[in-house]
Amino acid sequence: MTGKFYSKENLHFLLHHVFPLKDLCERKMFSHHTVENFDMMLEAADALSVNHLRPILVEMDRNPPYLENGKIKVHPKMRSLMKTFGEDGWISMSAPAEFGGQQVPFTMLQAVEFIMAAANYSSMAFPFLTNGAAHLIESFATDELKQTFIPKMYAGEWQGTMALTEPQAGSSLSDIVTSTVPTSEGHYLIKGQKIFISCGDHDACDNIVHLMLARIEGAPAGTKGISLFIVPQKRVNKNGELVANDVSTAGLFHKMGYHGAPIAHLMIGEKNDCHGYLVGEAHKGLSYMFQMMNEARIGVGLQATSIATAAYYNSLEYANVRLQGRKLTDKDPAKPQIPIIEHADVKRLLLFQKSIVEGSLALAMQASRYYDLWYSGEGEEKENNFLLLELLTPVVKSYPAEMSILTTSAALQCFGGYGFTKEYLAELFFRETRIHTLHEGTTAIHGMDLLGRKVMQQNGKATMLLVQEVMRDMETAKQFDVLKPYCDILGKKLMKLQEVTMHLMGNAQSKGAEVFLSDASLYLELFGILCVSWQWIKQVTVAEQLKQSNNKEYSAEFLQSKHLALQYYFEYELPKTEGLFTRLKSSNHLTVEAKAGEIV
Amino acid sequence: MTGKFYSKENLHFLLHHVFPLKDLCERKMFSHHTVENFDMMLEAADALSVNHLRPILVEMDRNPPYLENGKIKVHPKMRSLMKTFGEDGWISMSAPAEFGGQQVPFTMLQAVEFIMAAANYSSMAFPFLTNGAAHLIESFATDELKQTFIPKMYAGEWQGTMALTEPQAGSSLSDIVTSTVPTSEGHYLIKGQKIFISCGDHDACDNIVHLMLARIEGAPAGTKGISLFIVPQKRVNKNGELVANDVSTAGLFHKMGYHGAPIAHLMIGEKNDCHGYLVGEAHKGLSYMFQMMNEARIGVGLQATSIATAAYYNSLEYANVRLQGRKLTDKDPAKPQIPIIEHADVKRLLLFQKSIVEGSLALAMQASRYYDLWYSGEGEEKENNFLLLELLTPVVKSYPAEMSILTTSAALQCFGGYGFTKEYLAELFFRETRIHTLHEGTTAIHGMDLLGRKVMQQNGKATMLLVQEVMRDMETAKQFDVLKPYCDILGKKLMKLQEVTMHLMGNAQSKGAEVFLSDASLYLELFGILCVSWQWIKQVTVAEQLKQSNNKEYSAEFLQSKHLALQYYFEYELPKTEGLFTRLKSSNHLTVEAKAGEIV
Repeated sequence: MTGKFYSKENLHFLLHHVFPLKDLCERKMFSHHTVENFDMMLEAADALSVNHLRPILVEMDRNPPYLENGKIKVHPKMRSLMKTFGEDGWISMSAPAEFGGQQVPFTMLQAVEFIMAAANYSSMAFPFLTNGAAHLIESFATDELKQTFIPKMYAGEWQGTMALTEPQAGSSLSDIVTSTVPTSEGHYLIKGQKIFISCGDHDACDNIVHLMLARIEGAPAGTKGISLFIVPQKRVNKNGELVANDVSTAGLFHKMGYHGAPIAHLMIGEKNDCHGYLVGEAHKGLSYMFQMMNEARIGVGLQATSIATAAYYNSLEYANVRLQGRKLTDKDPAKPQIPIIEHADVKRLLLFQKSIVEGSLALAMQASRYYDLWYSGEGEEKENNFLLLELLTPVVKSYPAEMSILTTSAALQCFGGYGFTKEYLAELFFRETRIHTLHEGTTAIHGMDLLGRKVMQQNGKATMLLVQEVMRDMETAKQFDVLKPYCDILGKKLMKLQEVTMHLMGNAQSKGAEVFLSDASLYLELFGILCVSWQWIKQVTVAEQLKQSNNKEYSAEFLQSKHLALQYYFEYELPKTEGLFTRLKSSNHLTVEAKAGEIV
Repeated sequence: MTGKFYSKENLHFLLHHVFPLKDLCERKMFSHHTVENFDMMLEAADALSVNHLRPILVEMDRNPPYLENGKIKVHPKMRSLMKTFGEDGWISMSAPAEFGGQQVPFTMLQAVEFIMAAANYSSMAFPFLTNGAAHLIESFATDELKQTFIPKMYAGEWQGTMALTEPQAGSSLSDIVTSTVPTSEGHYLIKGQKIFISCGDHDACDNIVHLMLARIEGAPAGTKGISLFIVPQKRVNKNGELVANDVSTAGLFHKMGYHGAPIAHLMIGEKNDCHGYLVGEAHKGLSYMFQMMNEARIGVGLQATSIATAAYYNSLEYANVRLQGRKLTDKDPAKPQIPIIEHADVKRLLLFQKSIVEGSLALAMQASRYYDLWYSGEGEEKENNFLLLELLTPVVKSYPAEMSILTTSAALQCFGGYGFTKEYLAELFFRETRIHTLHEGTTAIHGMDLLGRKVMQQNGKATMLLVQEVMRDMETAKQFDVLKPYCDILGKKLMKLQEVTMHLMGNAQSKGAEVFLSDASLYLELFGILCVSWQWIKQVTVAEQLKQSNNKEYSAEFLQSKHLALQYYFEYELPKTEGLFTRLKSSNHLTVEAKAGEIV
């Protein structure tokens, strides 16, 4: 059950040629790095994945975490793995040197996550959640809090989490009721409950550090009264000892997939003895948390892509060896059967996957690049890249998440009846990826974020910047005859997108917010397809440039496969926008007008 | 975890008004029935489902079958259930009186299957596979074989199966190698292995009767050398005792869902002592088997619809009670949260499900009606209905199967994060239905069956008959103003379908079979969408007629909900044909031209 789970060649292509890391090394923030040491890190991530993460993928699925005496137990190997993730610098890789980190670009962090999540999605939740939580402390907490928590977290000894959701507050964060009161000793006393906390309790670390949203007594209602706290499972007492901090595990969620990572239901302050430490200013918690949430959202899209990539290679490998049937033009039963990859419909299922997963990965890398240019940039460049990042975030989160349901399903389909059995990994990937349209904001939330907020941000400046980016890339692409027709098609689609956007803005004016946003999920899908079309033009442009410059780093098959996938995407996926345009321009607003009681 | 799992009102609407069973009672074959006794049967099926099948749904999922000493053990309740299915006449309901059956129409058999599969899909595989296998014996075997096997099978004492697939022969049935040699005693000696045999071994019955495809020594290669045999797990010896028949269980497949029904790997004749009994003439086995396969194919589409229906009502119930968020037009956090069904995107997810599941159910009932009109008909009517049934079979099998992946996913999405957990049934339905695009022929096989065989059968006679049916129904629909615009739209789409079909036939001539059939799966999807659009017009026509005649059998909400679903289907689903038309008319045949080695 091992085999190839991602393409090194493709990752190299993206990181060296489409979104060159080299450029980032020229920036002050990353000037201590070279492309060569990035390559070594990727090799190390690959080795860890091949040797330690992938081998326990099935074990972790078959033996999910369990509750024992109120504590969650996870796969026994996770403890030594967390130690490795800490000691070998994986958790801290993006942190500044002062915290022992290597301060790598966000793009590199994502590339490493991609490899590890393709190997074993559940296992990488532990280190990378810790990374995000520690980074949040780094950004907004006091030095004392940083000193207390960050070293242990980067060492892999303490787990970090993000603790937002409550039973009554899922998509509606403004309804958080976990409450806090200040004490004279500087800390707050916290009381409430949190659900769906990934890695919220387990025995692979000595302590769990929750980055928790809560409301300070007397705070304004809604999101403007939410503050951010560090709430550890065990706190350090005056003698420097770790003592229980009144955070208990009320339950463990049993899930369809993603079994390796425990998802906890936590009770906080049942004995009125839970200390929490305010991060930054009171009532500004949600804005701080958005740092971690936005990073996590890009992460979710990337992780969906990772699982879908693993499913793709798994099915590709099978399609090359499984013999079944014969060519339609030569059905003589006396002749041997052929590998199923020879059948057009199987090629369709494979190219569907390839065009989506490689397109999604490119898009995630595009967003990561905007992150790096923002984070390491200055002035207008910084601001523009921030806007681009903000605009792409809901798209990068949701398009790969939604599409991975379909691509892992296509992978499963390649296996025929075997795909439904546990003899192969296909069913595992199909179960595993289904979480991604749910956590870090459902697709509906992201649709509304994109259309209702991001697209018109600063009078549409982000959208304008993005269109400029696409236009610039298409100008380069048009140097190659083979790409001209695709640029023409995408150009026309962008015009139609603009038309539809204007139409919807008109709805916002004349018909109100509900009608305006009623099909935001479809708008998000449309936007996603156009973004991925752009990424395909961009990738094939680079492939053409490499051919022209006689570059020998890539196989002819690899470069040709990029052409094929571009064609597939424009022939089979892009036409889906036609139906979306039609629907988005319709004046029948049935989902707004339908009464709940009429849906029976 | 119980609650509503199908709509009695909708089933009543279909069976009494859209496809009136009353008409069938006027036919000689069904003249011993009345609509009232059909209603009683449906009530009895409901009671059995509510009281016995649904309560063990989760248990059967959590405790899948297991192998013990070479025998498969299933849920302990299945033994008494099979007795009930037998004694209460469920297995034999469609059989003629001479076999103790009630000779109900196929439509009624499907309606009962629908209810039971919506309650607990795995449990109903046992009786209805037995029904299909017994019916096959009834149709083609000798009286002696009928006497030996049928009574025990209809009594629920012996399980029936269909045993086609072999490790090297899945989609490619022509590669079956299970071999047989005749003996002087009348039986054949069978040798080979079969995989993926549903209910192929278990302890809920005393014997398992395999309807098995095999090749008689010296038979021609390919499908023309395949014969049909009855191969029991235990045979009756000269003393009338049941003795082992050298059929052993080599393995049990562990699956992603559909856990309650065991899927076996069988070794046949390892000791050269497996007796098989030829059914009908030698080498004609595949044509006989098609009776059971075609019934099973309609069954698969219906079962996918059942599971998707259960998922729909499950999510609808939740959406009505789960409070989360507020109207976009009134977000005051001091006000109480609203049921999520008030959000447009949740209504969209629900109407998506409703329009697909009720449209698919209507289509399955349409095919069942053609079955009954064929089976009970004579002369040209018989022949025409057979052609219509043949044409619709791949569509009825595949469209609901493919769409149920998406609708159960939408149901799961309604639950937010809870949908991914085992606290609710959503994840079970999502896992369960994934088998339906695989068994009884993959979607690719059905695409090729539709486009490569059925559409042009008898110079396109079946297609012409179907178009006549649709046109006739649209004439009736146009009496109602509200339906006119929808008829116009569908009329135009049918013209485009014809255009695309002609274009593809042109490809068949000029570019050969591979190009012709390369996108047959997309053609199947297109055909499915148009058929379901037709069924929506048909259903709303009946709803309008009922309103006009002041019928009080249905609630106003129910009739209004049919309008809503029609609108949804035409606004959101039918536009998907635009992209399909574009792709199907493209002259870029990349999935044929791509070399296997270029997909990397």
